[in-house]
Amino acid sequence: DVSSVDFKTSHDTYIFPGLINIAGFVPVLTTKNSRDFAEATKAFISAGFTTALITPVGLDDRIVDDRTLDQARANAKDSAYCNYALSVSASAGNVKSLDEEIQADVKYLFIPFQDSVSTQVSVVASHFTSWPEDKLIVTDARGSDLASVLLLASLHGRSIHVSGVRSKEDILLISLSKAKHLKVTCDVSVYALFFTREQFPGSTCLPSSDDQASLWKNLDVVDAFSIGSTPYELASELKKSASPWSGVKETLPLLLTAVSQGRLSLKDIKDRLHDNPLRIFNLPEQVHTHVEVVVGRRSLYSDGAHYWSPLDNVAVAGEVHRVVVHGQTVFLDGALTLSPSGRDTSSST
Amino acid sequence: DVSSVDFKTSHDTYIFPGLINIAGFVPVLTTKNSRDFAEATKAFISAGFTTALITPVGLDDRIVDDRTLDQARANAKDSAYCNYALSVSASAGNVKSLDEEIQADVKYLFIPFQDSVSTQVSVVASHFTSWPEDKLIVTDARGSDLASVLLLASLHGRSIHVSGVRSKEDILLISLSKAKHLKVTCDVSVYALFFTREQFPGSTCLPSSDDQASLWKNLDVVDAFSIGSTPYELASELKKSASPWSGVKETLPLLLTAVSQGRLSLKDIKDRLHDNPLRIFNLPEQVHTHVEVVVGRRSLYSDGAHYWSPLDNVAVAGEVHRVVVHGQTVFLDGALTLSPSGRDTSSST
Ligand SMILES: [Zn+2]
Ligand SMILES: [Zn+2]
Ligand SMILES: [Zn+2]
Ligand SMILES: [Zn+2]
Ligand SMILES: [Zn+2]
Ligand SMILES: [Zn+2]
Ligand SMILES: [Zn+2]
Ligand SMILES: [Zn+2]
Repeated sequence: DVSSVDFKTSHDTYIFPGLINIAGFVPVLTTKNSRDFAEATKAFISAGFTTALITPVGLDDRIVDDRTLDQARANAKDSAYCNYALSVSASAGNVKSLDEEIQADVKYLFIPFQDSVSTQVSVVASHFTSWPEDKLIVTDARGSDLASVLLLASLHGRSIHVSGVRSKEDILLISLSKAKHLKVTCDVSVYALFFTREQFPGSTCLPSSDDQASLWKNLDVVDAFSIGSTPYELASELKKSASPWSGVKETLPLLLTAVSQGRLSLKDIKDRLHDNPLRIFNLPEQVHTHVEVVVGRRSLYSDGAHYWSPLDNVAVAGEVHRVVVHGQTVFLDGALTLSPSGRDTSSST
Repeated sequence: DVSSVDFKTSHDTYIFPGLINIAGFVPVLTTKNSRDFAEATKAFISAGFTTALITPVGLDDRIVDDRTLDQARANAKDSAYCNYALSVSASAGNVKSLDEEIQADVKYLFIPFQDSVSTQVSVVASHFTSWPEDKLIVTDARGSDLASVLLLASLHGRSIHVSGVRSKEDILLISLSKAKHLKVTCDVSVYALFFTREQFPGSTCLPSSDDQASLWKNLDVVDAFSIGSTPYELASELKKSASPWSGVKETLPLLLTAVSQGRLSLKDIKDRLHDNPLRIFNLPEQVHTHVEVVVGRRSLYSDGAHYWSPLDNVAVAGEVHRVVVHGQTVFLDGALTLSPSGRDTSSST
């Protein structure tokens, strides 16, 4: 048994606690009988993520009220392969309708700015006033929108998590805010750390190489790594096949290869995929839940899946060997042996 | 003698204390032997402004260091017709060089964003750190830049004055910030209250009529009225003749006409051209210094000057009748009878 030690060496194998996917993207979220919840969480657990916070914004739908929350919950129930938490997205129309019941049933309030939605300052301000102080607010704001949201957070003295930071200017604003003790945390998409728009002409969801360099330089400001919708968007922008699996299993191979190159430490990963997410999102520990990874053994990336990956036939030096949940091996050497038994932990504190 | 009463009625004549021009625009500021300082301050005093804070940004030059400050000071000395204060403009290069002597010699630090200058967040942050906490910072930031500057002000817990606000979004951000007790003040250019870009096709320095309506609606958020460079810019954009006099003498006729129409009160004007500027910029009172104005007598605007005005041959219902400085009448019925005896009050507190 490898339990009770969160972090242990054995040959070239290391053991992480069960990882947290803080920005789980489910493309079709609220359509009745969507299978995306099952597929996405199957991908998550195969990648070492034993808990996922589901971003309440899908490809064309979002969780904004009782009805859409119920539908997403119905899609998740009995089909989720890992523990999950649901959240709700702010809109101009739902300031008043996010009542105490919804507040209690979700993990956080998401304030969206990307994908043709740009929440007006007046709307953001209303949500800041009505959303309970003890519940988190998460946003994907960038540039001017980010400055506005951080200003409101500062004025309200409340905490905010910024998801998917990818520019020099934005990481600087967050760094300055942290230096002045604003309660701000942030995550960077793993794809934004390893791929650039120069490498994939035609992509707009990736940082420029200049912006990417500033993300690496400010890694101490980055509280968490995420997956988010970036891999799905990248595939779509390049007219390749996209899937709920897109970019999920690539996470640890990318990060562990950076470890083998000396660009990251194992602690950097554990901090940003477990310790900090647990703290920021106030999540329960999962006992006897571990991920065994192998570092340094070079192989060509391939997971035999039917979707495009920027890692297809690229050499990596790290992989997930085994995932253990509650003492049971659920994933071993590429094979998932698990029924959908993930629990809804949205309301747990 | 009308002294000791700041505000008094006599027929249709009212008496203001000497007004403060908080954003005095001098087109050619630091070129040796420029006469713009004399012309601008002659206009100011003829318009009822007995003190002017000179914006440290001219048409193509700015006050950024010891040399340019000395040159502007030399241009002002013995040629200013009203009291004046000089300030310094932030740049990427002068964070370190704005030493204690310069700090003591100027009224405020100006952080410029308009006119092709856009100060980077990192530069703004450095200036916020090094500029003394007890000295004011003024900015013309808008939109995203304004949000960033307000964020930095909030994080530093320091006061900031925003000059030339002209959009709905910006007045909203400032309103929200004030509601949360951020130490922010702002001014609106008088031209922005009375002219729109719809009225002057081809102009970009004026608000849209929609934005203008929001400025009037949020007048309680507006601490001061200013002149600024808007009138000069408007004339230039319309390819009309511009001058240091542009838009200066139009100020009280525009505001007093609004009083005669019931859109403004005399107190609204006194608050925003005297009381609040005195407090915000920590200026000394000028004793026995008054402006007599006439309200309600309709006439065609004309000041016989050789530059274009949007008020040329427009009916107004207010004008400056007399300006008294230290008990002496210096302007009466259109005629200026004064030698250049303005004092430098930059360091006064
Ligand atoms: Zn265990
Ligand atoms: Zn743990
Ligand atoms: Zn609050
Ligand atoms: Zn094995
Ligand atoms: Zn007097
Ligand atoms: Zn007074
Ligand atoms: Zn400070
Ligand atoms: Zn008279």
